[in-house]
Amino acid sequence: MKNIKAIIFDAYGTLFDVNSAAEKCKDKIGSKWENFSNYWRTTQLEYTWLRSLMKRHKDFWKITEDSLDKSMKVFNINPNMKSELLDLYKILSPYPEVKETLQLLKKKNYKLSILSNGTPSLLNELVSSNNLEVFDDIFSVEEVGIFKPDSKVYDIPVKKYKIEKSEVAFLSANTWDVSGGGNYGFNAIWVNRNNIIFDNLDYSPENQINNLKHLLDII
Amino acid sequence: MKNIKAIIFDAYGTLFDVNSAAEKCKDKIGSKWENFSNYWRTTQLEYTWLRSLMKRHKDFWKITEDSLDKSMKVFNINPNMKSELLDLYKILSPYPEVKETLQLLKKKNYKLSILSNGTPSLLNELVSSNNLEVFDDIFSVEEVGIFKPDSKVYDIPVKKYKIEKSEVAFLSANTWDVSGGGNYGFNAIWVNRNNIIFDNLDYSPENQINNLKHLLDII
Repeated sequence: MKNIKAIIFDAYGTLFDVNSAAEKCKDKIGSKWENFSNYWRTTQLEYTWLRSLMKRHKDFWKITEDSLDKSMKVFNINPNMKSELLDLYKILSPYPEVKETLQLLKKKNYKLSILSNGTPSLLNELVSSNNLEVFDDIFSVEEVGIFKPDSKVYDIPVKKYKIEKSEVAFLSANTWDVSGGGNYGFNAIWVNRNNIIFDNLDYSPENQINNLKHLLDII
Repeated sequence: MKNIKAIIFDAYGTLFDVNSAAEKCKDKIGSKWENFSNYWRTTQLEYTWLRSLMKRHKDFWKITEDSLDKSMKVFNINPNMKSELLDLYKILSPYPEVKETLQLLKKKNYKLSILSNGTPSLLNELVSSNNLEVFDDIFSVEEVGIFKPDSKVYDIPVKKYKIEKSEVAFLSANTWDVSGGGNYGFNAIWVNRNNIIFDNLDYSPENQINNLKHLLDII
Protein backbone atom coordinates (compact mmCIF):
# COMPACT_ATOMS: atom_id res chain seq x y z
CA MET A 1 0.00 0.00 0.00
CA LYS A 2 1.71 3.15 -1.23
CA ASN A 3 1.53 6.84 -0.42
CA ILE A 4 -0.58 6.44 2.70
CA LYS A 5 -0.59 9.64 4.75
CA ALA A 6 -3.38 8.97 7.21
CA ILE A 7 -4.56 5.85 8.98
CA ILE A 8 -8.16 6.23 10.02
CA PHE A 9 -9.98 3.82 12.29
CA ASP A 10 -13.63 3.14 12.80
CA ALA A 11 -14.27 2.90 16.57
CA TYR A 12 -17.25 0.69 17.48
CA GLY A 13 -16.55 -2.93 16.62
CA THR A 14 -13.12 -2.09 15.18
CA LEU A 15 -11.12 -0.68 18.10
CA PHE A 16 -13.72 -1.33 20.82
CA ASP A 17 -15.71 -4.48 21.44
CA VAL A 18 -19.39 -3.55 21.22
CA ASN A 19 -20.36 -6.83 22.88
CA SER A 20 -18.26 -6.15 25.96
CA ALA A 21 -21.01 -4.19 27.76
CA ALA A 22 -23.54 -7.05 27.66
CA GLU A 23 -20.79 -9.62 28.21
CA LYS A 24 -19.85 -7.99 31.51
CA CYS A 25 -23.48 -8.60 32.59
CA LYS A 26 -23.73 -12.16 31.32
CA ASP A 27 -24.24 -13.64 34.78
CA LYS A 28 -27.31 -11.46 35.26
CA ILE A 29 -28.65 -11.71 31.70
CA GLY A 30 -28.02 -15.41 31.25
CA SER A 31 -27.20 -17.37 28.11
CA LYS A 32 -29.20 -15.05 25.86
CA TRP A 33 -26.68 -12.26 26.49
CA GLU A 34 -24.97 -12.68 23.10
CA ASN A 35 -28.16 -12.74 21.01
CA PHE A 36 -29.38 -9.76 22.98
CA SER A 37 -26.12 -7.89 22.38
CA ASN A 38 -26.19 -8.62 18.65
CA TYR A 39 -29.80 -7.47 18.44
CA TRP A 40 -28.97 -4.25 20.28
CA ARG A 41 -26.09 -3.56 17.90
CA THR A 42 -28.15 -4.35 14.79
CA THR A 43 -31.01 -2.13 15.97
CA GLN A 44 -28.60 0.68 16.83
CA LEU A 45 -27.07 0.59 13.34
CA GLU A 46 -30.44 0.32 11.64
CA TYR A 47 -31.61 3.39 13.54
CA THR A 48 -28.57 5.33 12.31
CA TRP A 49 -29.37 4.43 8.69
CA LEU A 50 -33.11 4.98 9.00
CA ARG A 51 -32.73 8.34 10.74
CA SER A 52 -30.22 9.44 8.12
CA LEU A 53 -32.64 8.55 5.33
CA MET A 54 -35.57 10.21 7.11
CA LYS A 55 -33.42 13.29 7.81
CA ARG A 56 -34.16 12.95 11.52
CA HIS A 57 -30.71 12.90 13.02
CA LYS A 58 -30.32 12.12 16.70
CA ASP A 59 -26.91 11.67 18.27
CA PHE A 60 -25.38 8.20 18.68
CA TRP A 61 -25.80 8.16 22.42
CA LYS A 62 -29.54 8.76 22.19
CA ILE A 63 -29.78 6.10 19.49
CA THR A 64 -27.82 3.70 21.68
CA GLU A 65 -30.40 4.24 24.41
CA ASP A 66 -33.38 4.04 22.02
CA SER A 67 -32.10 0.77 20.57
CA LEU A 68 -31.35 -0.59 24.04
CA ASP A 69 -34.93 0.17 25.13
CA LYS A 70 -36.34 -1.84 22.25
CA SER A 71 -33.83 -4.67 22.64
CA MET A 72 -34.50 -5.05 26.37
CA LYS A 73 -38.22 -5.42 25.64
CA VAL A 74 -37.62 -7.91 22.85
CA PHE A 75 -35.34 -10.04 25.06
CA ASN A 76 -37.35 -9.50 28.22
CA ILE A 77 -34.41 -8.09 30.18
CA ASN A 78 -35.11 -6.60 33.60
CA PRO A 79 -35.49 -2.80 33.12
CA ASN A 80 -33.24 -2.29 36.16
CA MET A 81 -30.30 -3.34 33.98
CA LYS A 82 -30.60 -0.33 31.68
CA SER A 83 -28.35 2.13 33.47
CA GLU A 84 -25.69 -0.52 34.10
CA LEU A 85 -25.61 -1.48 30.41
CA LEU A 86 -25.42 2.14 29.31
CA ASP A 87 -22.64 2.91 31.79
CA LEU A 88 -20.67 -0.07 30.50
CA TYR A 89 -21.22 1.06 26.91
CA LYS A 90 -19.36 4.27 27.75
CA ILE A 91 -16.24 2.31 28.69
CA LEU A 92 -16.28 -0.51 26.12
CA SER A 93 -13.11 -2.58 26.15
CA PRO A 94 -10.66 -2.36 23.27
CA TYR A 95 -9.69 -5.57 21.47
CA PRO A 96 -6.52 -7.10 22.96
CA GLU A 97 -4.06 -6.01 20.24
CA VAL A 98 -5.33 -2.44 19.84
CA LYS A 99 -3.12 -0.60 22.30
CA GLU A 100 0.18 -2.13 21.23
CA THR A 101 -0.62 -1.68 17.53
CA LEU A 102 -1.53 1.97 17.96
CA GLN A 103 1.67 2.63 19.91
CA LEU A 104 3.77 1.05 17.16
CA LEU A 105 1.97 3.09 14.49
CA LYS A 106 2.40 6.25 16.51
CA LYS A 107 6.18 5.98 16.02
CA LYS A 108 5.72 6.18 12.26
CA ASN A 109 4.95 9.21 10.22
CA TYR A 110 1.20 8.86 9.73
CA LYS A 111 -1.73 10.90 10.83
CA LEU A 112 -3.68 8.61 13.17
CA SER A 113 -7.33 9.27 13.70
CA ILE A 114 -10.75 7.90 14.54
CA LEU A 115 -13.78 8.47 12.30
CA SER A 116 -16.90 7.32 14.08
CA ASN A 117 -20.66 7.53 14.47
CA GLY A 118 -20.05 8.28 18.15
CA THR A 119 -20.38 11.72 19.71
CA PRO A 120 -17.19 13.63 20.56
CA SER A 121 -17.72 13.11 24.29
CA LEU A 122 -18.39 9.37 23.91
CA LEU A 123 -15.26 8.94 21.81
CA ASN A 124 -13.10 11.00 24.13
CA GLU A 125 -14.26 8.93 27.07
CA LEU A 126 -13.62 5.64 25.26
CA VAL A 127 -10.10 6.76 24.37
CA SER A 128 -9.21 8.16 27.77
CA SER A 129 -10.79 5.40 29.88
CA ASN A 130 -8.67 2.92 27.93
CA ASN A 131 -5.47 5.04 27.93
CA LEU A 132 -5.34 5.22 24.15
CA GLU A 133 -4.36 8.87 23.71
CA VAL A 134 -2.34 8.41 20.53
CA PHE A 135 -4.69 10.02 18.01
CA ASP A 136 -4.05 13.22 16.11
CA ASP A 137 -7.79 13.67 15.70
CA ILE A 138 -11.05 12.13 16.76
CA PHE A 139 -13.62 12.84 14.06
CA SER A 140 -17.29 12.47 14.89
CA VAL A 141 -20.26 12.40 12.51
CA GLU A 142 -21.79 15.09 14.73
CA GLU A 143 -19.77 17.53 12.66
CA VAL A 144 -22.00 16.80 9.65
CA GLY A 145 -25.22 15.64 11.32
CA ILE A 146 -25.64 12.42 9.38
CA PHE A 147 -24.31 8.90 9.87
CA LYS A 148 -22.07 6.58 7.86
CA PRO A 149 -22.09 5.56 5.06
CA ASP A 150 -23.16 9.02 3.83
CA SER A 151 -20.20 10.47 1.95
CA LYS A 152 -20.27 13.66 4.03
CA VAL A 153 -18.85 11.60 6.90
CA TYR A 154 -15.91 10.22 4.93
CA ASP A 155 -15.28 13.74 3.63
CA ILE A 156 -14.42 15.00 7.14
CA PRO A 157 -10.78 13.80 7.40
CA VAL A 158 -10.07 14.40 3.71
CA LYS A 159 -11.03 18.05 4.09
CA LYS A 160 -9.26 18.46 7.42
CA TYR A 161 -5.97 16.93 6.23
CA LYS A 162 -6.24 18.28 2.67
CA ILE A 163 -5.22 14.90 1.29
CA GLU A 164 -6.44 12.62 -1.50
CA LYS A 165 -8.88 9.85 -0.69
CA SER A 166 -6.31 7.38 -1.99
CA GLU A 167 -3.84 8.57 0.67
CA VAL A 168 -6.10 7.23 3.40
CA ALA A 169 -5.98 3.73 4.86
CA PHE A 170 -9.38 3.24 6.45
CA LEU A 171 -9.88 0.34 8.84
CA SER A 172 -13.20 -1.09 9.87
CA ALA A 173 -14.50 -4.41 11.12
CA ASN A 174 -18.00 -3.44 9.96
CA THR A 175 -18.45 -4.87 6.48
CA TRP A 176 -20.93 -2.15 5.46
CA ASP A 177 -18.49 0.55 6.65
CA VAL A 178 -15.62 -1.03 4.69
CA SER A 179 -17.97 -0.90 1.68
CA GLY A 180 -18.89 2.71 2.45
CA GLY A 181 -15.31 3.88 2.87
CA GLY A 182 -14.14 1.83 -0.10
CA ASN A 183 -16.87 3.10 -2.41
CA TYR A 184 -15.99 6.60 -1.28
CA GLY A 185 -12.41 6.13 -2.47
CA PHE A 186 -10.43 5.15 0.61
CA ASN A 187 -8.10 2.17 0.72
CA ALA A 188 -10.50 0.30 2.94
CA ILE A 189 -9.05 -2.54 4.97
CA TRP A 190 -11.39 -5.10 6.45
CA VAL A 191 -10.62 -6.21 10.00
CA ASN A 192 -12.26 -9.63 9.89
CA ARG A 193 -11.67 -11.06 13.37
CA ASN A 194 -14.30 -13.78 13.23
CA ASN A 195 -13.99 -15.07 9.69
CA ILE A 196 -17.40 -13.78 8.63
CA ILE A 197 -18.90 -13.25 5.15
CA PHE A 198 -18.46 -9.92 3.37
CA ASP A 199 -21.28 -7.83 1.86
CA ASN A 200 -22.41 -7.36 -1.73
CA LEU A 201 -22.33 -3.57 -1.85
CA ASP A 202 -20.11 -2.80 -4.87
CA TYR A 203 -16.80 -2.93 -2.98
CA SER A 204 -14.41 -5.77 -2.45
CA PRO A 205 -11.54 -4.90 -0.09
CA GLU A 206 -8.09 -5.65 -1.45
CA ASN A 207 -6.79 -6.10 2.06
CA GLN A 208 -8.30 -8.08 4.85
CA ILE A 209 -6.65 -8.76 8.21
CA ASN A 210 -7.92 -10.83 11.11
CA ASN A 211 -6.24 -8.69 13.71
CA LEU A 212 -5.16 -5.05 13.76
CA LYS A 213 -1.51 -6.03 14.28
CA HIS A 214 -1.33 -7.29 10.70
CA LEU A 215 -1.81 -3.72 9.55
CA LEU A 216 1.92 -3.30 10.23
CA ASP A 217 2.67 -5.89 7.54
CA ILE A 218 0.72 -4.21 4.76
CA ILE A 219 1.07 -0.51 5.41
CA MET B 1 -60.15 8.11 10.78
CA LYS B 2 -61.60 10.97 8.77
CA ASN B 3 -61.23 12.30 5.24
CA ILE B 4 -59.25 9.36 3.94
CA LYS B 5 -59.13 9.39 0.14
CA ALA B 6 -56.43 6.78 -0.55
CA ILE B 7 -55.50 3.53 1.15
CA ILE B 8 -51.94 2.66 0.36
CA PHE B 9 -50.33 -0.66 1.20
CA ASP B 10 -46.76 -1.67 1.62
CA ALA B 11 -46.24 -4.98 -0.21
CA TYR B 12 -43.42 -7.12 1.23
CA GLY B 13 -44.30 -8.32 4.71
CA THR B 14 -47.63 -6.48 4.68
CA LEU B 15 -49.63 -8.03 1.84
CA PHE B 16 -47.17 -10.81 0.99
CA ASP B 17 -45.39 -13.16 3.36
CA VAL B 18 -41.66 -12.69 2.81
CA ASN B 19 -40.94 -15.92 4.67
CA SER B 20 -43.07 -18.00 2.36
CA ALA B 21 -40.27 -18.62 -0.17
CA ALA B 22 -37.92 -20.23 2.36
CA GLU B 23 -40.85 -21.94 4.12
CA LYS B 24 -41.78 -23.74 0.94
CA CYS B 25 -38.24 -25.19 0.97
CA LYS B 26 -38.14 -26.09 4.64
CA ASP B 27 -37.84 -29.81 4.02
CA LYS B 28 -34.66 -29.21 2.02
CA ILE B 29 -33.22 -26.44 4.22
CA GLY B 30 -34.06 -28.05 7.56
CA SER B 31 -34.89 -26.43 10.87
CA LYS B 32 -32.69 -23.40 10.24
CA TRP B 33 -35.07 -22.25 7.48
CA GLU B 34 -36.69 -19.54 9.61
CA ASN B 35 -33.45 -18.01 10.92
CA PHE B 36 -32.11 -18.11 7.38
CA SER B 37 -35.24 -16.42 6.03
CA ASN B 38 -35.10 -13.68 8.68
CA TYR B 39 -31.42 -13.10 7.94
CA TRP B 40 -32.11 -12.85 4.22
CA ARG B 41 -34.88 -10.32 4.84
CA THR B 42 -32.77 -8.26 7.27
CA THR B 43 -29.83 -8.20 4.86
CA GLN B 44 -32.10 -7.25 1.96
CA LEU B 45 -33.52 -4.29 3.90
CA GLU B 46 -30.10 -3.21 5.15
CA TYR B 47 -28.82 -3.21 1.59
CA THR B 48 -31.70 -0.93 0.53
CA TRP B 49 -30.86 1.56 3.29
CA LEU B 50 -27.09 1.39 2.79
CA ARG B 51 -27.31 1.77 -1.00
CA SER B 52 -29.68 4.71 -0.56
CA LEU B 53 -27.22 6.41 1.78
CA MET B 54 -24.26 5.64 -0.49
CA LYS B 55 -26.24 6.86 -3.51
CA ARG B 56 -25.66 3.52 -5.22
CA HIS B 57 -29.14 2.46 -6.12
CA LYS B 58 -29.69 -1.02 -7.47
CA ASP B 59 -33.17 -2.39 -8.07
CA PHE B 60 -34.91 -4.51 -5.45
CA TRP B 61 -34.62 -7.70 -7.44
CA LYS B 62 -30.83 -7.40 -7.71
CA ILE B 63 -30.67 -6.60 -4.00
CA THR B 64 -32.83 -9.62 -3.24
CA GLU B 65 -30.32 -11.76 -5.10
CA ASP B 66 -27.27 -10.06 -3.53
CA SER B 67 -28.69 -10.54 -0.04
CA LEU B 68 -29.63 -14.14 -0.81
CA ASP B 69 -26.06 -14.85 -1.94
CA LYS B 70 -24.67 -13.61 1.37
CA SER B 71 -27.36 -15.34 3.44
CA MET B 72 -26.82 -18.71 1.75
CA LYS B 73 -23.12 -18.50 2.56
CA VAL B 74 -23.77 -17.50 6.18
CA PHE B 75 -26.25 -20.38 6.67
CA ASN B 76 -24.31 -22.84 4.56
CA ILE B 77 -27.22 -23.54 2.21
CA ASN B 78 -26.55 -25.64 -0.88
CA PRO B 79 -25.92 -23.20 -3.78
CA ASN B 80 -28.23 -25.33 -5.94
CA MET B 81 -31.15 -23.91 -3.98
CA LYS B 82 -30.60 -20.36 -5.22
CA SER B 83 -32.76 -20.38 -8.33
CA GLU B 84 -35.59 -22.21 -6.56
CA LEU B 85 -35.62 -19.63 -3.74
CA LEU B 86 -35.56 -16.72 -6.18
CA ASP B 87 -38.37 -18.22 -8.25
CA LEU B 88 -40.46 -18.65 -5.12
CA TYR B 89 -39.73 -15.06 -4.10
CA LYS B 90 -41.43 -13.91 -7.30
CA ILE B 91 -44.68 -15.58 -6.28
CA LEU B 92 -44.74 -14.96 -2.51
CA SER B 93 -48.02 -15.93 -0.90
CA PRO B 94 -50.36 -13.24 0.41
CA TYR B 95 -51.46 -13.42 4.04
CA PRO B 96 -54.77 -15.32 4.43
CA GLU B 97 -57.06 -12.31 4.92
CA VAL B 98 -55.58 -10.12 2.18
CA LYS B 99 -57.75 -11.05 -0.78
CA GLU B 100 -61.10 -10.78 0.99
CA THR B 101 -60.15 -7.49 2.66
CA LEU B 102 -59.06 -5.93 -0.61
CA GLN B 103 -62.25 -7.01 -2.34
CA LEU B 104 -64.37 -5.44 0.41
CA LEU B 105 -62.36 -2.20 0.22
CA LYS B 106 -62.67 -2.15 -3.54
CA LYS B 107 -66.43 -1.66 -3.17
CA LYS B 108 -65.86 1.58 -1.28
CA ASN B 109 -64.85 4.89 -2.67
CA TYR B 110 -61.10 4.90 -1.99
CA LYS B 111 -58.10 4.90 -4.21
CA LEU B 112 -56.35 1.60 -3.49
CA SER B 113 -52.68 1.29 -4.23
CA ILE B 114 -49.39 -0.36 -3.41
CA LEU B 115 -46.26 1.64 -2.56
CA SER B 116 -43.27 -0.66 -2.47
CA ASN B 117 -39.53 -1.08 -2.74
CA GLY B 118 -40.17 -3.74 -5.40
CA THR B 119 -39.70 -3.18 -9.12
CA PRO B 120 -42.81 -2.68 -11.28
CA SER B 121 -42.43 -6.11 -12.86
CA LEU B 122 -41.97 -7.87 -9.50
CA LEU B 123 -45.05 -6.15 -8.09
CA ASN B 124 -47.15 -6.85 -11.17
CA GLU B 125 -46.21 -10.51 -11.00
CA LEU B 126 -47.01 -10.74 -7.27
CA VAL B 127 -50.41 -9.18 -7.84
CA SER B 128 -51.32 -11.22 -10.89
CA SER B 129 -49.96 -14.57 -9.68
CA ASN B 130 -52.18 -14.16 -6.61
CA ASN B 131 -55.25 -12.83 -8.49
CA LEU B 132 -55.26 -9.55 -6.58
CA GLU B 133 -56.00 -7.15 -9.44
CA VAL B 134 -57.93 -4.61 -7.39
CA PHE B 135 -55.43 -1.76 -7.27
CA ASP B 136 -55.80 1.61 -8.95
CA ASP B 137 -52.03 1.98 -8.99
CA ILE B 138 -48.91 0.05 -8.16
CA PHE B 139 -46.23 2.56 -7.19
CA SER B 140 -42.60 1.42 -7.21
CA VAL B 141 -39.56 3.22 -5.76
CA GLU B 142 -37.96 2.72 -9.18
CA GLU B 143 -39.75 5.91 -10.18
CA VAL B 144 -37.49 7.91 -7.84
CA GLY B 145 -34.39 5.67 -7.66
CA ILE B 146 -34.09 5.54 -3.89
CA PHE B 147 -35.66 3.29 -1.26
CA LYS B 148 -37.96 3.84 1.70
CA PRO B 149 -37.90 5.63 4.09
CA ASP B 150 -36.60 8.48 1.89
CA SER B 151 -39.43 11.01 1.61
CA LYS B 152 -39.21 10.99 -2.19
CA VAL B 153 -40.85 7.57 -2.08
CA TYR B 154 -43.80 8.63 0.06
CA ASP B 155 -44.18 11.67 -2.21
CA ILE B 156 -45.08 9.48 -5.20
CA PRO B 157 -48.78 8.81 -4.45
CA VAL B 158 -49.34 12.28 -2.96
CA LYS B 159 -48.18 13.87 -6.20
CA LYS B 160 -50.03 11.43 -8.40
CA TYR B 161 -53.36 11.78 -6.60
CA LYS B 162 -52.89 15.48 -5.78
CA ILE B 163 -54.07 14.86 -2.22
CA GLU B 164 -52.90 15.90 1.24
CA LYS B 165 -50.65 13.56 3.20
CA SER B 166 -53.33 13.45 5.90
CA GLU B 167 -55.80 12.02 3.37
CA VAL B 168 -53.72 8.86 3.07
CA ALA B 169 -54.09 5.75 5.21
CA PHE B 170 -50.77 3.95 4.86
CA LEU B 171 -50.51 0.35 6.00
CA SER B 172 -47.33 -1.48 6.75
CA ALA B 173 -46.26 -4.41 8.89
CA ASN B 174 -42.69 -3.12 8.83
CA THR B 175 -42.21 -1.01 11.94
CA TRP B 176 -39.54 1.18 10.31
CA ASP B 177 -41.85 1.79 7.31
CA VAL B 178 -44.74 2.75 9.61
CA SER B 179 -42.31 5.20 11.22
CA GLY B 180 -41.17 6.45 7.82
CA GLY B 181 -44.69 6.96 6.47
CA GLY B 182 -45.90 8.40 9.77
CA ASN B 183 -43.03 10.86 10.07
CA TYR B 184 -43.74 11.86 6.49
CA GLY B 185 -47.29 12.81 7.42
CA PHE B 186 -49.43 9.81 6.49
CA ASN B 187 -51.93 8.25 8.84
CA ALA B 188 -49.71 5.23 9.27
CA ILE B 189 -51.41 2.07 10.50
CA TRP B 190 -49.27 -0.69 11.92
CA VAL B 191 -50.20 -4.23 10.88
CA ASN B 192 -48.78 -6.08 13.86
CA ARG B 193 -49.55 -9.73 13.13
CA ASN B 194 -47.09 -11.25 15.57
CA ASN B 195 -47.34 -8.98 18.58
CA ILE B 196 -43.83 -7.58 18.18
CA ILE B 197 -42.19 -4.48 19.70
CA PHE B 198 -42.39 -1.14 17.86
CA ASP B 199 -39.42 1.10 17.02
CA ASN B 200 -38.14 4.30 18.62
CA LEU B 201 -37.99 6.45 15.52
CA ASP B 202 -40.06 9.52 16.45
CA TYR B 203 -43.44 8.07 15.43
CA SER B 204 -46.00 6.21 17.43
CA PRO B 205 -48.89 4.88 15.32
CA GLU B 206 -52.33 5.82 16.59
CA ASN B 207 -53.76 2.72 15.00
CA GLN B 208 -52.46 -0.79 15.17
CA ILE B 209 -54.25 -3.87 13.86
CA ASN B 210 -53.20 -7.49 14.05
CA ASN B 211 -54.84 -8.42 10.80
CA LEU B 212 -55.71 -6.42 7.67
CA LYS B 213 -59.42 -7.19 8.10
CA HIS B 214 -59.56 -4.87 11.10
CA LEU B 215 -58.85 -1.99 8.75
CA LEU B 216 -62.55 -2.10 7.89
CA ASP B 217 -63.39 -1.22 11.51
CA ILE B 218 -61.24 1.92 11.68
CA ILE B 219 -61.38 3.40 8.22
